[in-house]
Order: sequence, then C-alpha cells, then structure tokens
Amino acid sequence: MAQRGNLLQFEAEMRTAADLPLTSLEQSANQILMQLKDAELAKYRHADFPPSLHFFSGKHLISDSPVMNFLQALPKGGALHLHSVSMVRIDWIIETATYDPTLYSCFNTTSGAQSFRFSAATKLPSTCNWVNVVAWRQASGNATAFDAQLFQNMTVLVDDPVQAYPTQDIVWQKFQSALSLVDGMVAYIPYFIAYTTRAMQELVDDNVQYAEFRTTLTPLYDINGNVYSSAYQMELLQQIIANFTAAHPTTFFGGKAIICGIRSFEPPVIGELLNETLVLRQQFPDLVAGFDLVSQEDPGYPLIEFLDQFLTSQQSQQAAGVTIPYFFHAGETNWIDQDVDDNLFDAVLLNTTRIGHGFAVAKHPIVSSLVTSRQIAIEVCPISNQVLKLVDDLRNHPGALYLEQNIPIVISSDDPSVWDISGLSYDFYEAFMGWGGDVLDIKTIKQLIINSIQFSAMSDAEKQAAFDLWNPLWVSALQQLVAAANKEL
Amino acid sequence: MAQRGNLLQFEAEMRTAADLPLTSLEQSANQILMQLKDAELAKYRHADFPPSLHFFSGKHLISDSPVMNFLQALPKGGALHLHSVSMVRIDWIIETATYDPTLYSCFNTTSGAQSFRFSAATKLPSTCNWVNVVAWRQASGNATAFDAQLFQNMTVLVDDPVQAYPTQDIVWQKFQSALSLVDGMVAYIPYFIAYTTRAMQELVDDNVQYAEFRTTLTPLYDINGNVYSSAYQMELLQQIIANFTAAHPTTFFGGKAIICGIRSFEPPVIGELLNETLVLRQQFPDLVAGFDLVSQEDPGYPLIEFLDQFLTSQQSQQAAGVTIPYFFHAGETNWIDQDVDDNLFDAVLLNTTRIGHGFAVAKHPIVSSLVTSRQIAIEVCPISNQVLKLVDDLRNHPGALYLEQNIPIVISSDDPSVWDISGLSYDFYEAFMGWGGDVLDIKTIKQLIINSIQFSAMSDAEKQAAFDLWNPLWVSALQQLVAAANKEL
Ligand SMILES: [Zn+2]
Ligand SMILES: [Zn+2]
Repeated sequence: MAQRGNLLQFEAEMRTAADLPLTSLEQSANQILMQLKDAELAKYRHADFPPSLHFFSGKHLISDSPVMNFLQALPKGGALHLHSVSMVRIDWIIETATYDPTLYSCFNTTSGAQSFRFSAATKLPSTCNWVNVVAWRQASGNATAFDAQLFQNMTVLVDDPVQAYPTQDIVWQKFQSALSLVDGMVAYIPYFIAYTTRAMQELVDDNVQYAEFRTTLTPLYDINGNVYSSAYQMELLQQIIANFTAAHPTTFFGGKAIICGIRSFEPPVIGELLNETLVLRQQFPDLVAGFDLVSQEDPGYPLIEFLDQFLTSQQSQQAAGVTIPYFFHAGETNWIDQDVDDNLFDAVLLNTTRIGHGFAVAKHPIVSSLVTSRQIAIEVCPISNQVLKLVDDLRNHPGALYLEQNIPIVISSDDPSVWDISGLSYDFYEAFMGWGGDVLDIKTIKQLIINSIQFSAMSDAEKQAAFDLWNPLWVSALQQLVAAANKEL
Repeated sequence: MAQRGNLLQFEAEMRTAADLPLTSLEQSANQILMQLKDAELAKYRHADFPPSLHFFSGKHLISDSPVMNFLQALPKGGALHLHSVSMVRIDWIIETATYDPTLYSCFNTTSGAQSFRFSAATKLPSTCNWVNVVAWRQASGNATAFDAQLFQNMTVLVDDPVQAYPTQDIVWQKFQSALSLVDGMVAYIPYFIAYTTRAMQELVDDNVQYAEFRTTLTPLYDINGNVYSSAYQMELLQQIIANFTAAHPTTFFGGKAIICGIRSFEPPVIGELLNETLVLRQQFPDLVAGFDLVSQEDPGYPLIEFLDQFLTSQQSQQAAGVTIPYFFHAGETNWIDQDVDDNLFDAVLLNTTRIGHGFAVAKHPIVSSLVTSRQIAIEVCPISNQVLKLVDDLRNHPGALYLEQNIPIVISSDDPSVWDISGLSYDFYEAFMGWGGDVLDIKTIKQLIINSIQFSAMSDAEKQAAFDLWNPLWVSALQQLVAAANKEL
C-alpha cells in the first residue's frame, strides 16, 4: 500500500504551510504539541469533542485543555477581525463603567431598548427617562442579581443556545442588542480611553501583538453631552494606541482602525461615510486602514447596491491620490447563488484587500481561485460563525477546506466579549483541533501567525518591525514550552 | 460591470450539467420550474427556508410546495442508495405485519431490545418470552395508542429532534433500533415477498424506475422456524423483482442487490461474507451487484482493517474470473484526517465503483479529484445526513460543492421509511432548492437522473433499455407539466 501513503502524502503537501521549514526548536515544540493533540483527539474520539459542541457547552473543556495552554503561550501576531464594541470582557465593563456614579440608563419608551450614557446629572438628554445606574443597583437591593442581569444583557450567553436561538435572525437580534449597550458607554471620552487601553491589555494577556478593529465611528461625547468629531476620535485613538504600544515595547506593536458603515443604511449615507473615510485616511494614514460594511449580511443591502458610491469614491480617491483599501465582510451567510453571497464576487471586483468571514467562499470555486491567486486573505472567525448559527459542528467549518486548499486565511475572534472570552486562543484551538489530525501541526499555526502580520494593513516597514519583535517572542515561548515539557518527563 | 457577469457566468459554466443541451420542451418546462423556484426562494427568503430547517420541521412545507409537486411528477430514474429494511412506509407495515395473527414480539431480558417474528404458535424459539401482537394490542385496550407506539418504535420521528438527539451516537442508537424491528419481520418469507413488492410500488408511486438496495442477508425463515440459505434468498428476490417489473413494463425497469457486511464485525466474518458474495455473484450475476460495509462509520472498523480480507478475495475473484464491484459507504463522518475519513482513500484504492454518502469528500481535495477523474459517483443522501446529524442547515451540505465542481453524484434517500417518507422527491427537493439559485435548474435535475442510470450497476444493455424506457416517461411528464401550467394561465 505504498500508493496509499503517496495519496495521503500528496494531499498533505497541498495544505497550507506544508512546506514551511521548521527549526530544531520548532520541531521539538511540535513533538510536544502533537503529543498533546493526539492525546486530546483520543480522549474525545467518542464523545464531547469540543469543536463538535456548541462553544457555550465546550468552552470549559477547552479552558482545561493542555493544547489550549500551549496555544495561549504562543505569540499569535495580529487580531485582524475585531469590532470596537466587543473587545473587552463584560465583567470588567460591569466593574468599571456600571459602578461609575456618572453612568445612567434608560429604556426607550417605544422599542423598550436599553441604553447607557455617562453624563453630569443636569445634562441628561430629556428624550428619555434616565436613571442613575449606581442608585438603581442600590434600590434593587441585590447587587449580585443586578450585575448578573447586566452581564446577561451585554452577552449572548445562555444555558441552552439551541433552544434560546432557534434561528439566525433571533441570535442576531440578541447579539446586536448586546453590542448597542456597550456602544453607548464606550463613546464617552474617558471611558473610550480606558476601554481601548483595556482591549489592548486583554490581547497582550493572550499573547496577541497587534490589532485591527472595525469602528462605526459612534460620535464621542463628554460629561456635559458635547459631541466630538470623527477626526478628534481618530486623533485620540492614535494617541491611546501609541501610549499603550510605548508602554509595551516588547509585547505589542500597535493597532489600526477600519471605518465601517452599516449595510442596512441607505446608499447616500454610505457615500457620505466614504467621503469622510477618505479625509480621515489622508489625515491619519498610519491609523485608518480602510473601509468595510458591517452588521447582519442576509437582510442588509448587497454590496452592488452601493456600486455608485464606490465608483464615486474611486474618482475622489484618484483625485486625492489616496486609496481606501477595503476589508469587506462578505459571504457571512448560508445562502447560495443569492444576492447576499454574490457579495463575494463584488468584494473581489472592488479589489478588496481581505474578506471578513468569507464563510461562503467554499461554495464558490471561482472566488476560491481568485482569493488564492490574488492572495486576498479570508478572516476566519470560527466561534463567531458557530454562535451566530452559520454552522454547528466546527469540523464542518469551511476553514478546514481553506487550509487544505492553501487558501490564505487568518484566524480572528470577531466579537469575543459577547461570548465572554478575549484574545485569539479559543479560536485557534477550534481551528487547530477541528480542522485536521496529524497533518495540521505547528507549521500551520506558525503560518497562520505569519499571515496575521503579512496580510495586515501594516506598511512594509511596520511589518518588518513586527516580525523583528514577534520572532524573539516566538523563540522564547517555544523554549519555555519545551523546557517545561522536559521538566515534566 | 461586464466583468461581474463574466465571473458569475464562468462559475456557472463549471457546474454539473452546465452544458447539457435542452430540447424546446425541456426549456418550456424549465421556465415553469424556475418560476416556481424563484417564488419559493422569495417566500422563504427571511424565514423557514425548508433546506435550512430540520426535515421533521420543514417536511410539511415541502409537502405543500409547488416545486415538490413538479419534482414528484418527474421520472427520477434509479434510487441507488437504499437499505432493504427501510424502504417501506411504517404505516403500511403496521397495517399488514402487525395485524397478522402469526406475528409475535418479545423483549430481550438482558438488553430490553424488542424483536418481532412471524411463527406458528408451537414453533416459537424458547429463548424469549413471545407474545402474540394481535392479542397484545387487544389486551392493551387502545389500538390507536398501541399502533402509535409501534410507529414511534420503528421510526426516529420526534417533535423536537435537537432535544431528543443531542449527539450522533444517540440518534444512531435509536435509528438502528428502529431498523432492527423491521428486520425481524422482513425475513419471514411471505412478508419478504409482500414487503419487497411494496417497496418497488412506493418507488413507482414516486416515479422512480429502478432500485439498488443494500442487504445484510438476514436469513429468511418460514412459519415453522426453518431457515433458508442466502442463495434461496437471492433466487426469491430475483423472482420478486422480475414479477414486479413484468407487471410494470412501462414504469419500472428492475432492481439489484448489494451484499453488505457490518463494519463493526471482526475481519474474519467479513472475509467469510466476501466468499459468500463471490458465490452469489457467480450464481446471480444480474442481481448481485457487489459488496459494501454498513452501519455507523465512526465507531466501526476502518476499511484498512479488512485489507487482508479484500486482498484474499481479490485472489479468489481472479481465480474465479469474477469481479465483485464495491459500493463502499465512506466518509459518512464529520471527522477530518482520522482513521474514519481515511476510508475514502481506501475505498478509492480498492477501486470502489461508487461511494455511499461521501460527506467528507469535500474535505479532501485529492479524493475530490480522484472521484472526478475516475468518475466514481457519490451517492448523496441529504435528508439522511441531516437526520443522522452530520449537518444541520442543508445549504451547507457538501452536495452543493459537488454540483459546483462537477463531481459526479446521484441523489438517494438511504432509509426513507425511518423518517416516514418514500421515494426520492424529498431529497431532490432539498438538493434543488438548497444547493443553488438560478444556476441550478432543470439541466442539473436531468443530469442527476441520467447519472442514476449511468452510474448504476446495470450492464450497458440494461442501461440502454433503461434510457429507452425512461425517455418517453420524461417527455410525457414534461408535456403534462407544461400543459397544466398553460391551462392555469
Ligand atoms: Zn465581524
Ligand atoms: Zn446507507
């Protein structure tokens, strides 16, 4: 059966990173990692394999996993697909924002939707019946229950997600409600600073060195209700990132922002935002990486509805001598051959730099071929796709195919706070365990990390600096993992 | 945006059947079909799209669908993936077998498993405490409740399948228990004749003209408990099929059997069965199409464990001048790069004629390439894969990819009686609606039907006769559909 070995080998050699050379240190680390992986595959061979479970059910198994420990220890490069209102653990938000005596909450009398706002008592908008959150908690008589309710409101966690969220629309409704609560807090300038700093700290804690996050530019406000421009927001953001990076010179190399429109907005609104993005990109070329459209893709307008706006912006970009790179969310859908998955074709035709999610790319051979030949990386967010009901068993996630076909991907976590995690390690675990057996080893992990720098919006010089910073972290992490394993023997 | 049209067109042209020419009649019928499809896609655009629902929840929507009506009316060729104990509606079994005064039932004292057996009262095996089913029903005082319980026992239907079957193992346990009940009845010679005839009648009622079914050769018995040889069983089967075919000369063209081992059995047992299959194939070359291994693939032995037996059989086959074609179930799993999905490689290396399910083929580019170049058709059974928990949303079923990559497939129904349907139309509906929009039209349907003859185990002469019989049925069905549609206008 030499032929059998040849076939398996042949297929293995087509995979992502199949020919990536490993140093002796990397080989030693790989042996340790693959022993852990094999033991874990054997342990879960007949039941409870975490990638086959809903994340809410499998999370505690992953948290206890030696493979997870290993992956957490690795410097994972950049998180290229994050959203600015879902980057920080909800527990921290409850501890900080909701114990601040200047935070108020109200319920919209029509929609019933809750919102939060920091304010001086005398400056609250009169449109809503605001209550002070600290006072409200006290009046409730049960701070623990009160905070637990806040936590429920700001996450999508439930005991039985299958029961609670029978359809994509229903889970998306809860998801967007959770995000909107944080949005109101984070727009308050002092909290914007604290929150954004904390977001980078959580990444560093998970050994992530860089971040690109999508922002919808919710206007910042101060304690008196004054509202600030998006240019001010970008300037402040640039400063927060610079401060944090300066304070973590060996473990963090920066961050960028991607300006996002909401895909259910009317085309002229998106046209305006493209104009604004052009100005911001001229003004903050190192910070503003480009443009995207966000929110649930199925009910939103397809990309082609904004074609006029993109063509107009194209002319403005040429006139200004500035390009706006695109980082389109596209193919975050189970539909085939409908308007919504045609977004993939339009994203490629609009020369997108990366594709957010690209779950449906697997169903389109031409798109698969184009993203490979043009090296358009797909930002794959496995846990998000499962929680938002694109796929249940993550072994069936198309990320497995992308790795097998050597389609360029990066791993990211999308909205980790909404499912009460931070960083990238849980998503790396799902990919590493769920998308291949022995042929998926540290080579793939290393390639995914390299991809997260290579396919980032950093300049070539920034990428070089990033690799120079990442490499000693990688070597040191592997040395420690190997030493610890040897000690145990 | 000519480029956009080109890209979409280019991808459309890679699909299965993209260049299949259509007659004017087929074009007219296609217009009608695609109007129905578009209306149905629009209707379900925002909720309750049947392929996205569990079949138990979506079935009534499909039953009421005009697209389903259209598909039912079409002559669908052959059902190439069926099992001999799950081919007949359970209602009919309850009405016939369980009202026969010679049917007895008992519960195994150790396992609690129920079995059925036809017998003379004095000839019941003493190993179990048999009760007469007719008397039992009468004693129960509620025939309706009694029969409803029988129906529950012989199907996997439940109100809430997600709740009832949290894992693949659990649904497989219920599934195999349901099958085993029918197995005991169908082995009784008079009922074997009635059941097998009824199975073909149900296929004809759904406009299916041919069947290949897997049988594990449970020994036939008579009213006195005498047991009959597998050669007798094949002779009887051949006669039943010949009689039915003769009685339906314009609507049915025959059937064949595939002998199946159980993949959890020890290799020597499988070796014995291969020997027996060789003899049966020599004796009944027109009936016995080949060999397969069945039952849940994950916990069973991988194919390679039986390699010695296959190599030995290979020698026997050469010595006898007879080949045993293989029709391996393989890749009916969500695992990647494990023993179980390596079955796909071994099936191809053992020169399999077709692959049963091949759900995991999509995850293996080399296997995808080999089945295409060698024209090894994949027997795709969408509803079975959903009920047995390989995939929840059928839009994500790899059948969509197989059509897009022009991998040869046929559509079949596996064990329709266990989810209370018969024929192929429901599975055709899931594929036709779930796996593509406007680019998946009557061309694909026609190709799938042609495939079911082309990739069958029929001889070339039989295939020619089959096409000659099928073609007028096709033309006549389309004429009637077009006429009916014109009448409505
Ligand atoms: Zn996102
Ligand atoms: Zn089967």
